[in-house]
Amino acid sequence: MIIAGNTLGQISAPAIDIDRIESDINAIARFGFNEEDRGVYRQGFSEEDMAARNWLRERFGELGMDHRMDGAGNVIGRFGPAEGPAILIASHLDSVPAGGIFDGVLGVVAGMEVVRAMKDAGIEPAIPIEVIATSEEEGRFGGMLGAQAMTGKLTRGWLDMARDEHGYALKDAMSAAGLDPYGALHAYRRPEEIHAFLEIHVEQGPVLDMEKTTIGIVEGISGVFKWNCRLIGKADHAGTAPMDMRSDALMGMVDFAHEIRRIIDEHGTDKSRITIGHVACKPGFPHTVPGQVDFTIVGRDLDEAVMTDLAAACERVLSSIARRHKLHFAYEQMSWLQPAHCDTGLMALMEEKAKARGFSYRIMPSGAGHDVQFFCNHVRAGMFFVPSVGGISHAPDEWTHWSDIERGVQLLLDCVLELAT
Amino acid sequence: MIIAGNTLGQISAPAIDIDRIESDINAIARFGFNEEDRGVYRQGFSEEDMAARNWLRERFGELGMDHRMDGAGNVIGRFGPAEGPAILIASHLDSVPAGGIFDGVLGVVAGMEVVRAMKDAGIEPAIPIEVIATSEEEGRFGGMLGAQAMTGKLTRGWLDMARDEHGYALKDAMSAAGLDPYGALHAYRRPEEIHAFLEIHVEQGPVLDMEKTTIGIVEGISGVFKWNCRLIGKADHAGTAPMDMRSDALMGMVDFAHEIRRIIDEHGTDKSRITIGHVACKPGFPHTVPGQVDFTIVGRDLDEAVMTDLAAACERVLSSIARRHKLHFAYEQMSWLQPAHCDTGLMALMEEKAKARGFSYRIMPSGAGHDVQFFCNHVRAGMFFVPSVGGISHAPDEWTHWSDIERGVQLLLDCVLELAT
Repeated sequence: MIIAGNTLGQISAPAIDIDRIESDINAIARFGFNEEDRGVYRQGFSEEDMAARNWLRERFGELGMDHRMDGAGNVIGRFGPAEGPAILIASHLDSVPAGGIFDGVLGVVAGMEVVRAMKDAGIEPAIPIEVIATSEEEGRFGGMLGAQAMTGKLTRGWLDMARDEHGYALKDAMSAAGLDPYGALHAYRRPEEIHAFLEIHVEQGPVLDMEKTTIGIVEGISGVFKWNCRLIGKADHAGTAPMDMRSDALMGMVDFAHEIRRIIDEHGTDKSRITIGHVACKPGFPHTVPGQVDFTIVGRDLDEAVMTDLAAACERVLSSIARRHKLHFAYEQMSWLQPAHCDTGLMALMEEKAKARGFSYRIMPSGAGHDVQFFCNHVRAGMFFVPSVGGISHAPDEWTHWSDIERGVQLLLDCVLELAT
Repeated sequence: MIIAGNTLGQISAPAIDIDRIESDINAIARFGFNEEDRGVYRQGFSEEDMAARNWLRERFGELGMDHRMDGAGNVIGRFGPAEGPAILIASHLDSVPAGGIFDGVLGVVAGMEVVRAMKDAGIEPAIPIEVIATSEEEGRFGGMLGAQAMTGKLTRGWLDMARDEHGYALKDAMSAAGLDPYGALHAYRRPEEIHAFLEIHVEQGPVLDMEKTTIGIVEGISGVFKWNCRLIGKADHAGTAPMDMRSDALMGMVDFAHEIRRIIDEHGTDKSRITIGHVACKPGFPHTVPGQVDFTIVGRDLDEAVMTDLAAACERVLSSIARRHKLHFAYEQMSWLQPAHCDTGLMALMEEKAKARGFSYRIMPSGAGHDVQFFCNHVRAGMFFVPSVGGISHAPDEWTHWSDIERGVQLLLDCVLELAT
């Protein structure tokens, strides 16, 4: 690290300015803000999303950073040496429909504030810093498009196929945004170009807020499997069919759901999650015993071997319940995403810096997916959370206290200062 | 009973002709039969329904019966003395959409066959017999309209309000069928006009078929309550919300459903039924912990005190589950129909006649509603079932073996012969 004079020729300890952060987050919130439901509508490659990206490039320009938009729509601002592997500070600028103002945005603004604080302190980093706003993280077209592009996971075939829920093609959306769709295939960054990858994000869960802990150091992103399940019994008149002569498909689902707690106790960990989010009975009439029930199972853990055990237990329990209730059981595995593990060196660095500042912290998995997961298998990558009030996210009342944001960005700065030497 | 000479001047023992019954049932099936799904579409007051009613009146005419259509659309054919209280043999001619060929039709054709058999045997009853095809039993506009009209349950206000699921008014449907809608208010039959009410129907449930029993003597029609229930918790990200920090509304419903067996064991009888036929999670996304679940509870028993106990237990269990899961519980009672009890004298008569013929029989409740239930509180009324193969009804593959129909109509004839003296 080179401690250089600032614009007034003085040297000072680098410090975060929460007013600037708040101002930036509020400025970005205006792109796609809906007065009616107070939600942010800035889906990937929408006009609002592209306007926010252009706004960011202007800010990068004002800070004297080299900036560009790559072929995937990622906006990249570089500070420090023009050559050599960079520290990437990244998160996304797009939102879900009716999203909150912090999700993704915090990580981008934090990166910009780190650069500003260093410049104010007259610090010129030995290792370049890139602040990156990734594209289409939230899933309009599948999600984490920018991060997948940078880590070489995209294919031409996938780009040709991807559509949003209304059937609008990704390629058309990218063209409308002024991008060459196949340009995303040129956004790849070789591991040699990356010194480290860092992301700060709101937790989107209740753990830190309930425990009154400031920092959640992420040990990894949970793997996840999704099943579409079907139990078929026999639709009967709810009055004429005695309880013990029924093949009630819903009661099969109920018996399975009742076993979830035990399945996790026996085969899982405290990081395991099994969720039934959707249930549909057929015919679905109050006076008819359900002859069929369709439901989803989503399972998660940080350890793929545990995921495998959980999945096997679910299948075993459902098969035995089907036999007992005289039901037919079938399922289709819609997806199986492996867990991703964060770099232990970066975790230790975050821990050390949190301790030094006296910030409370805990090590935790991320149950939600994030851009960082694609970088985990590519370079050394780390992530930490700040608390979400009430665990609320992907909703207009998503909130994080500014005091927590200030501590989080300070921790990011401390880590970057250490890494940049 | 007066044993008179038949048309050939001879006297013979009255006997059922299953070929005539089969021919009649198949003839009525053609009104509204759909070749594609092999289902019957003869909803109340439709053209098909009215055509079948006119066909029946022609048959009554051929049999030399006085016949008329009352103001509610009930078709009534009378055999025997013009004056005095009559034995009513009734069931309905309308069907559900895509219904079967036996439901309702059997009871009407059986009545006609009883008259034919008596005429063939040269029997002139001392007590008149009315064969009645009731109107709109299946519920296009609420159900059992003809039976309610005959027992004085209809009001002008209800006639003004009733609409089918497409918003088509009952009054318009009746006018289109050539009926004065308010004429239904003049279809009332004083108890003094009715000697007894009898209905034979397919079981529409699995009990007789599974037990290989021919006759089900109905002790009463179960009362039924219907609740719309709602549990409200908190929608959370299925990855970020740990299992023990959730307020999962669906898991509340699951815990309740798991207790249904115990609730019936502790508070119900072997005639109790509790069914969850419809479930809807909100938001209903696989990756979101359900923040709300709406579901129906339909409870039945033959004893209203038991119904009250079952309902109280359901409410207590749901309230305690809601407290445990930190959910809000609310329900609306959409309906509460009292049980109706069949006449014990008629039940004894059916039992005696079944024994005399060597037919296997059992006493059982009817879980489904039938026209008879309105007559139970009005006059002495009785009902019995014949087996439904596989318990299937309200579907194109509804089936009852002709041999069982033959035994059932013979039993009806035996009972009527006894009552008509």
